[in-house]
Amino acid sequence: VSAITPGGRRRYRLSRLEAFSDGVFAIAITLLVLDIAVPSGSEENLGKALVEQWPSYLGYLVSFGTIGAVWFGHSVITEFVAAGDRTLFRLNLVLLLAVSFLPFPTRLLAEYVSDSEAVRVAATVYGVNLFLTSVALAALWRHVERSGLARDDSDEAERRILTTRLQPGLAGYAIFIAVGWFFPIVAVFGYLAVALAMLVPARRRNPESRIQSAGG
Amino acid sequence: VSAITPGGRRRYRLSRLEAFSDGVFAIAITLLVLDIAVPSGSEENLGKALVEQWPSYLGYLVSFGTIGAVWFGHSVITEFVAAGDRTLFRLNLVLLLAVSFLPFPTRLLAEYVSDSEAVRVAATVYGVNLFLTSVALAALWRHVERSGLARDDSDEAERRILTTRLQPGLAGYAIFIAVGWFFPIVAVFGYLAVALAMLVPARRRNPESRIQSAGG
Amino acid sequence: VSAITPGGRRRYRLSRLEAFSDGVFAIAITLLVLDIAVPSGSEENLGKALVEQWPSYLGYLVSFGTIGAVWFGHSVITEFVAAGDRTLFRLNLVLLLAVSFLPFPTRLLAEYVSDSEAVRVAATVYGVNLFLTSVALAALWRHVERSGLARDDSDEAERRILTTRLQPGLAGYAIFIAVGWFFPIVAVFGYLAVALAMLVPARRRNPESRIQSAGG
Amino acid sequence: VSAITPGGRRRYRLSRLEAFSDGVFAIAITLLVLDIAVPSGSEENLGKALVEQWPSYLGYLVSFGTIGAVWFGHSVITEFVAAGDRTLFRLNLVLLLAVSFLPFPTRLLAEYVSDSEAVRVAATVYGVNLFLTSVALAALWRHVERSGLARDDSDEAERRILTTRLQPGLAGYAIFIAVGWFFPIVAVFGYLAVALAMLVPARRRNPESRIQSAGG
Repeated sequence: VSAITPGGRRRYRLSRLEAFSDGVFAIAITLLVLDIAVPSGSEENLGKALVEQWPSYLGYLVSFGTIGAVWFGHSVITEFVAAGDRTLFRLNLVLLLAVSFLPFPTRLLAEYVSDSEAVRVAATVYGVNLFLTSVALAALWRHVERSGLARDDSDEAERRILTTRLQPGLAGYAIFIAVGWFFPIVAVFGYLAVALAMLVPARRRNPESRIQSAGG
Repeated sequence: VSAITPGGRRRYRLSRLEAFSDGVFAIAITLLVLDIAVPSGSEENLGKALVEQWPSYLGYLVSFGTIGAVWFGHSVITEFVAAGDRTLFRLNLVLLLAVSFLPFPTRLLAEYVSDSEAVRVAATVYGVNLFLTSVALAALWRHVERSGLARDDSDEAERRILTTRLQPGLAGYAIFIAVGWFFPIVAVFGYLAVALAMLVPARRRNPESRIQSAGG
Repeated sequence: VSAITPGGRRRYRLSRLEAFSDGVFAIAITLLVLDIAVPSGSEENLGKALVEQWPSYLGYLVSFGTIGAVWFGHSVITEFVAAGDRTLFRLNLVLLLAVSFLPFPTRLLAEYVSDSEAVRVAATVYGVNLFLTSVALAALWRHVERSGLARDDSDEAERRILTTRLQPGLAGYAIFIAVGWFFPIVAVFGYLAVALAMLVPARRRNPESRIQSAGG
Repeated sequence: VSAITPGGRRRYRLSRLEAFSDGVFAIAITLLVLDIAVPSGSEENLGKALVEQWPSYLGYLVSFGTIGAVWFGHSVITEFVAAGDRTLFRLNLVLLLAVSFLPFPTRLLAEYVSDSEAVRVAATVYGVNLFLTSVALAALWRHVERSGLARDDSDEAERRILTTRLQPGLAGYAIFIAVGWFFPIVAVFGYLAVALAMLVPARRRNPESRIQSAGG
C-alpha cells in the first residue's frame, strides 16, 4: 500500500508523521484517566475510598510523565530531521505501538496492586513496556543520526548531548525492572523518578551544555 | 530523553506544543460524554429517567465549558509567544495533566450526586481540580511574561489585560470550593458561572479594554 | 481567562480553532464505534446475533455521516474566514458541544430500539441533538456573513449557495423529529437521508451553481 | 450543508482533510488498547492469565499494523494531490468509516477466539472489514489518478509503482477471508502478514523501482 520506491531512497515530508504522532501521544496520555475507577458503593466514606486507591493515581502520574517526556523527546528529535525515509516511518510506528500500549499495564497495575504476588507480575509488565518505549525512542534517534536525515545546520555538540541524554532512561528502567520483582511499589516510584529525570534534568557541569542555540 | 542544553537557553518551536495540546484538550472535552450513563432498565419511562439524571448533564456542561475556556485562554497565550523554552514545555504538561484529569471528578460527581454526604467530597475534589487547572494556566502566562518569551511586537496593554483576566477564575474557584462543602450543587452551578464568565466576559468600563488590535 | 479586549474587536488566527475542532470532530466520529456492543454469550449463533443488532449499525452510520457532513461544512466555512473574533470562538464551542454529545443519543437509541415505547423518546432525543448541531453550524455561518469575517476575495455567489445549502438540514430534521414520535425507525432512516443529502447533493438546475471556482 | 458548487468543479485545500484524517487514524489506532481486557480474579497466577489471552495481543498487533500501513499509504497519496474535490472528500470519509470501525471486529475476535464455531464468523467479519479498508484506499488513489488531482510535477513511474503496490493487499485479504472460514487463526496471522508486507516491502528486481526521488 504505502511504498513507492523500495530500492531508491525516497524522502517523505514530516508534517503528517508529526501530526499523526501528536495525535497518538495526546490520545494515549488522555485515555489514562479512564483507568482510574470511580469507587462504587462508598457513600459511607468517599474520602477514605478515594485516598485508598492512591496506587491508581501513582500509575496515572508515572504513565502521564513518561508519555509527556517521550513526546518531548520525539518533538526535539524531529526538529533535527530534514525529511524522513521509510525506515523512520516504521521505527516511528514501533514507538507509537509501545506508547499506545501503556494504558494496558497501567490498568493492570491498578487492578492488582493489593495482591502481593500478582503485583510483581504487573510491575514487571509495566516496566518492560516503559523500557521498550525508551528503546524505540533511542532507536529512532540513532537512525536519524546514522542515515543522514539530520539537517545540515544542526549543531554537532547538541546532537551529542541528545545522544547522551537517551542513556539514563534505558539504564534506569533496566534497574527498576529488576528491583520491581522484589519491591514492586518501589519500582513504580523509580519509574516516576526516571520520567521526572527526563523532564527536569540536573544541571550539568560540562561546559558544552551551556552552548546557546539561536533557535529551532 | 528530551533535553539538549540544560544550562543554555535553548528555544523550541511552538507548533508541536500547540498540536499536542490541541489534541489533549480535544480528547478531554470529547471523552466527557462517556461519563453520561445511558439509564438501564427504564423501558417504563425513559423520559423521566433521562430528566432525573440532570446532574450528569450539569457536570458535562461545567467540564465542557471549563475545558473550552482554558483551551481558548491557552490559544490566546501562545499567540503572544515567539518561541518556547523547557520550562514552558513543563508547565504546559502540568496544565494538560490537570485538564486531562477532569473527566474523573466529573464522573465522581455524577455517581455520588444523590448522596447528601458523599456529594460534598465529590464537589470538593471537582472544585480543587478546576482550581488547579486555573492555577496552571495562570502560571503558564506568568512564565511567558517574566521570561521574555513574549513576542516583541505584542502590546503591553493587551498583556496587562490578559493578566487581569486570569484572576477571577482563581478567586471564583476558591470561593465555590468553600461553598461546596455546605451546598455542593450550588457550588457546581458556581463553577458553571466561572466558566461562562471566562468565555463571555462582562463589558468593562476601563478605557484600556477598548483598545483595537489590528490582528493576530 | 481567555479574553483580551472585550470592548475592542480583537482578531484571532484560525489555525488553533481549526486544529481543536478537527480533533473534536475526529474523536467524536471515532468514539461512535464504542457504542456498538459485542454480543455476549452468542457462541451458538454469532452471525444471527450480529445481524439482529442492525439498529446499532444504522445509528453508527447516521452519526458518522452527520459528523462527517458537519465537519465538511465546517471546513468549507472556515475557508471563507480571514480571521476569527470572540463570538466565532464561542459559537464554535457551541457547535462542538452539540457534536461531541452525539455519541450519547446514539448509544441511547441502540439500547432502547427494541422497546416500542422507549424508542420514541430515544429517537426524539437523537433528532433534537442532530437538529441543534445543524442550527449551530448555520449560526456559525450566519455570523461569518454578518460580521465581515469573510475574506475579501470570496465570491458572493458561492456564499449565497452555501447559505441555501444550510436550510434543508434544518427543515429535514424538524420534519423527521415529528415523524419519529410515531415511526421512530423511519425517522432514523430519515436522519440518514439528511446526512447523505448534505454529503451528496443532487445536481441543481440553477445556473449559478455551475460557477467554476479557481481554488481554495 | 457542505457543498458549494455541485455542478462546478470546486477545489478544496487539503490541510483540513489531512488533519481530520490524521486525527481519526490516531484515535482508531490508540483505542485498540481498550479492547485488551485486564484479566480479572487472576491473583493466583497473573502471568499465566496474561499469556493465555495471546489472541487479544495478536488482534491488537494486526489492527495496529493495518491502520499504521493504511495511514502511511494515505499520507503518500495526499503527497501527490494538489487540491481536493468533493468526491475526494467523500471517498476519504468512506475510508475513515472502514478504519474507525476496525476496533469492533478486533474486540469481537478477542471475545470469541476460544469458541471453534463462533471464531469463524468473527474472523470473517474482521477480514471483510480489512478488505473494505484496502478497497477504499485503492479507490481513493484511483480517483486521484483519474480526476487529474495529482500534482503536475509528480513522476509517472512513481505513480505506477504506487498503483502496483495497492494490489497485493486486496488479493491477500480475499485469500485469507476464504482460508479463515476453515482455519480462523491462520487467517489472522495472514492478515498480520499482509500488514507487514505493506509496511516492509520486499526488494523488487524491477529497475524502475530504484528511481531516486529528490524530495517530498
